[in-house]
Amino acid sequence: MTPTNPSPIDVGDVRIGGDGFTLIAGPCTIESREQMLAVADAVVGGGADMLRGGAYKPRTSPYSFQGLGREGLALLAEAKAETGLPVVTELLDVRDVEDVVEVADVIQIGARNMQNYALLTEAGKTDCAVLLKRGLSATLEELVSASEYILKEGNERIMLCERGIRTHETAYRFTLDLLAIPALKEMTHLPVIVDPSHAPGRRDWVEPMSLAAAGAGADGIIVEVHNDPDQALCDGPQSLRADGFAAYAERVRTVAEIAGRGAPVAA
Amino acid sequence: MTPTNPSPIDVGDVRIGGDGFTLIAGPCTIESREQMLAVADAVVGGGADMLRGGAYKPRTSPYSFQGLGREGLALLAEAKAETGLPVVTELLDVRDVEDVVEVADVIQIGARNMQNYALLTEAGKTDCAVLLKRGLSATLEELVSASEYILKEGNERIMLCERGIRTHETAYRFTLDLLAIPALKEMTHLPVIVDPSHAPGRRDWVEPMSLAAAGAGADGIIVEVHNDPDQALCDGPQSLRADGFAAYAERVRTVAEIAGRGAPVAA
Amino acid sequence: MTPTNPSPIDVGDVRIGGDGFTLIAGPCTIESREQMLAVADAVVGGGADMLRGGAYKPRTSPYSFQGLGREGLALLAEAKAETGLPVVTELLDVRDVEDVVEVADVIQIGARNMQNYALLTEAGKTDCAVLLKRGLSATLEELVSASEYILKEGNERIMLCERGIRTHETAYRFTLDLLAIPALKEMTHLPVIVDPSHAPGRRDWVEPMSLAAAGAGADGIIVEVHNDPDQALCDGPQSLRADGFAAYAERVRTVAEIAGRGAPVAA
Amino acid sequence: MTPTNPSPIDVGDVRIGGDGFTLIAGPCTIESREQMLAVADAVVGGGADMLRGGAYKPRTSPYSFQGLGREGLALLAEAKAETGLPVVTELLDVRDVEDVVEVADVIQIGARNMQNYALLTEAGKTDCAVLLKRGLSATLEELVSASEYILKEGNERIMLCERGIRTHETAYRFTLDLLAIPALKEMTHLPVIVDPSHAPGRRDWVEPMSLAAAGAGADGIIVEVHNDPDQALCDGPQSLRADGFAAYAERVRTVAEIAGRGAPVAA
Repeated sequence: MTPTNPSPIDVGDVRIGGDGFTLIAGPCTIESREQMLAVADAVVGGGADMLRGGAYKPRTSPYSFQGLGREGLALLAEAKAETGLPVVTELLDVRDVEDVVEVADVIQIGARNMQNYALLTEAGKTDCAVLLKRGLSATLEELVSASEYILKEGNERIMLCERGIRTHETAYRFTLDLLAIPALKEMTHLPVIVDPSHAPGRRDWVEPMSLAAAGAGADGIIVEVHNDPDQALCDGPQSLRADGFAAYAERVRTVAEIAGRGAPVAA
Repeated sequence: MTPTNPSPIDVGDVRIGGDGFTLIAGPCTIESREQMLAVADAVVGGGADMLRGGAYKPRTSPYSFQGLGREGLALLAEAKAETGLPVVTELLDVRDVEDVVEVADVIQIGARNMQNYALLTEAGKTDCAVLLKRGLSATLEELVSASEYILKEGNERIMLCERGIRTHETAYRFTLDLLAIPALKEMTHLPVIVDPSHAPGRRDWVEPMSLAAAGAGADGIIVEVHNDPDQALCDGPQSLRADGFAAYAERVRTVAEIAGRGAPVAA
Repeated sequence: MTPTNPSPIDVGDVRIGGDGFTLIAGPCTIESREQMLAVADAVVGGGADMLRGGAYKPRTSPYSFQGLGREGLALLAEAKAETGLPVVTELLDVRDVEDVVEVADVIQIGARNMQNYALLTEAGKTDCAVLLKRGLSATLEELVSASEYILKEGNERIMLCERGIRTHETAYRFTLDLLAIPALKEMTHLPVIVDPSHAPGRRDWVEPMSLAAAGAGADGIIVEVHNDPDQALCDGPQSLRADGFAAYAERVRTVAEIAGRGAPVAA
Repeated sequence: MTPTNPSPIDVGDVRIGGDGFTLIAGPCTIESREQMLAVADAVVGGGADMLRGGAYKPRTSPYSFQGLGREGLALLAEAKAETGLPVVTELLDVRDVEDVVEVADVIQIGARNMQNYALLTEAGKTDCAVLLKRGLSATLEELVSASEYILKEGNERIMLCERGIRTHETAYRFTLDLLAIPALKEMTHLPVIVDPSHAPGRRDWVEPMSLAAAGAGADGIIVEVHNDPDQALCDGPQSLRADGFAAYAERVRTVAEIAGRGAPVAA
C-alpha cells in the first residue's frame, strides 16, 4: 500500500532512498563558528545522517542578510571535518560553483531557482549530489523536467524536495503538499525529501509536519535546527531547538518505520 | 510539541477529540442492502468507531447517480442497529432534515455546502452532532465562521474536517492541507477530522495520507471503504478494500499514538 | 478576432447577449425605501438596462446584517414599478423561492451556492431567468455543469457570471479572471456577464475592471452603485457613487463597442 | 477614477509611462534573418514603439529549442538598425550580460527568474532599462521587492510586467491578473506593462486580453507577433499574425485612450 521505494543514491557513507530514511539537519544560515559547531554537535548527537547549513541565502529583499558566503563555506567545512557527516549547502550563482563544490557533498537548488536553467546545468556538471526543491507554484511535471537539466549533464544523484506550495490559505507561509511524495515516486525513481520547516514558519508546527511527511512515505527530511533560535539571523521562529532534536528524531524515525522505512543503511 | 488537544464531544458512546483518535469508515454511497451491511461488518470488525454512508450525494453533473435518498437512510438505520455504531450521513437539502435526523448521529455538511447558510442553520437546530467539511477554497477563518452558523443555534457538537483544497497541482484531485490541523486547533476548541480519500482520488495513496493525517495530529479520520470497489457506483477507485481495513486501521492508530493520541475512550 | 457572440436571451424588453451589451446596476443590499429609490433613479438616468438589489444576503459571519428579506423584496418591487426596469435579486434558500419569483425577473445564484443543487433545481423550475455566479474555486467546466441543473428543469434563460476567483494574491479580495469570457463562449452559447465590484473590493478599481471586462468581450456588467456609499450597510467601499454612474456607463459602453458590442437592443 | 499615471522612463526616443501607451511587439523567439526582419517590418508598419525578440529562451525541458544565442542577438541588432526601434530581449544567464547589453535597449527578466537575484543584480549594473516579469505565484509585494535588487545597483529605469499567474483553472495556461495594474500603480511609481500572449496560449484570445489590459489602465503591452505562426519554433499558436497587427494595434490604442492614455510621446 505504501509507495514503491526509489532507487537509492549514495552520498559518502549515507544511502538515500531504498528502504532507508535520511535525516538532514542544521541551521538555516551559517552565522558564526560557535553557532555552526554547536548545532552540528547537537544534530550528530541526535542521530542526523547529514548536516545542512547555508552560506549563500536567497532573500526576498536585497537589504536582508545575504549569508556569510565563502567564510560560511569554511565554517561548514570545519563542521564536516569534526562530525564526519556529509554536508548540504545551497548554490545561488553559477559563479560560486567552484567554491561550493570544494565543501559540499550535496548542492541544494532552492525553490526560487528551480527553473534557473544555467544553475541546474552547472550543478549537473559537478560530482556533487543535488537536492532540488520544488518551486512555489511548480507542478510535479515541471519539477521532474527541471531535474532533467541536471541529468542531461550526466549527474544522476538527484533528490527531489517538497517544501510547500503557494495557495489561497494565509494561516501559514505555504501549504505542505504531501501527496507529492507518492505521486513523484510514481513519476520518477528519485528519492523524495521533505522540508517541514518553511511551510509552517513556526517551530511548534514543524514536528506535526515531520511526522506527517514520514507517514506519507518520504525518504527523508531536511529540517532547520538552531542552538539559540531566538537570536537567529534568519528563520529563527521555525528552527527546532537543538536540545530537543534527539527526541524529535526518534519520533520521526518511528513513524517512518511504520510507513515502511528502516534505519538508514550504510552505502 | 504536538498541538493542544481539543475539547472532546460525545456521540453515543464515542468520544471525539481529547486524547482519543476516532476512525469513521464506510461506503461513499449506500448502493444496496448487501453492500451496506458487508462494508459495515468489515469496518466494525476492523475497529472503526463510527459508520459513514451517503444517502444523498452532491454530484457535479445532474445526470450522475444522486443516491438512494430515503431508501438509503433506511439501509443505514439497519446497519446502525446491526453494528451498534453511531452513523454519519450527509444532509444536502433543508427539506430533508427531518428524514435525516431520524437516522443520523452526525450530520455531514459537504464542502460544496460549507457556506450554505440555510443548511448550516437547520443542522444547528438538530440534536445531531455536525461534521463540517472545509470548502475547496475556504480559508480556515471562513471554515470557523461557517461553524458559527451552527453554534448560533445552540449546537456545540461540531467537528471540522479537512478534505483537500484546490491548488494549481493537477497530479491529484485536491491538495490535502495538513497544516490545517494544528492551525485549526489554535483557532478553536473543536476536534479536527481528516478525509484522506477525496484528495488523492486513488486507493494506493489513501493510506500514506491517512498516516500523514495521524502524524499531523488529527483527532480522527473519515475514510471510504467498499466491499467491491471495482463495482462501486461512486468513488470506487478511491475506496479502501474492506478486507484490508483492519490492518490499515492498526497502522493508522499506531501513528496517532506516536503523535499523542491514545485509543478512543468511552464517553 | 473577438469571441463569437452568444445566443441572446430576453428578459422583459431587454435582450442579453447577441450583439448587445447589458448594464445591470443597483445597490448591493436593499437598506431602505429612500436608498433603493434614489439608486434606482440614478442608474436608470445613467442608462442602466436592469436593476439589481439584494434582499437576502449571504454573509460570512452569522452576526452580520443578513438583508431585509421580504420587506426588501417589496421595496425592489416598488423600484421596478417606478423605473420600468427588470430586476435581479439573489435567492439563498429554497423556501424563499415563491416570495422571490413574485418580484424577480432574474434570480441570482451567488458564488457560495454555485453547487447548491437543491437551489439550482428550484431556480430551474421558475419562469425567471437565472444569473449564475462562478464559485471562488470553480473551474469553468464546473460552472457549466452547474448550469445544467437549471437547464435540466427546462429553464434555458441562463447568464453565467465571472466575479473573481481565489488565488494566492492578497492585494485584493479576488482575482478577476477575464479569460473566462472567451473560454466560456467557446464552451456554451450562454451570455457571460462580469461583476467588477467584488474582486477589487474598492471603488477606484471598479472602473478599470469594468473597462477591462468590456474589452475582453463580456456581454454585460453587473455593478454595485450606492447613493451614499460611506453609510452603506454592506460593501460600501466597493460601490460606485450614484452621481458618477452616467459618465462611467458611457465609457464602459464605448469600450464594449470597440470589442464588437452595440447598444442594447429591444427584444 | 483611473489609476494615477506613473513616472515615465525613457528608452531611446520612446517614453514609457506618464500619459502614453507603449506597444512592444515581435517574435517570441528569433528563428532566422528572414523571420526577424519580416516581423520587424510588419510591427513597425503597424505602429509598434519597440521591438521584441528572444535570443535566449528558457524552456521547461532541456530538450526543447533553446534559442539562437549570440547569432540571434546579431539578427536583433540588424532589425534594430533597419527599423530604428529600441529592442527588448531576455537575459537568462549572468555570463551573457556583456553580449546582451551590446544590442539590448531593454533587458527582459522572465517570470522564472524573477527571484534570480544574481541576474537582477547584473541587470541593475547595466545602462539598459529592465522589463521585470512577475513570477507565476509571486505576490505583487514580491515583484516590487525583486525590482529593488535592480534599483539597489542604481538602475531606476524599470518596467513591471504582468503575464499571468498560476491558479486552479486549467482552461488556459495562466490567469491574467489585471487587478495587478491599478494595485502596482499604488505601490510604486513604475510603469506597468502587460503580456497578453502567454496566459491565453492561443491567438484568438490575445486581442480580448489586450483590450482588457488597455481598459484596466496598463502603460503598454508586449505581444508576440509572427510572420508565419504555423511554422514558428516556439509559441506559434499564441502569436498574432503579422498581417493583422496594424488593425489590432489601432483597437488597442483606442481603448487605452478611453482609459486615459494618449498616443506615445517622444521623450
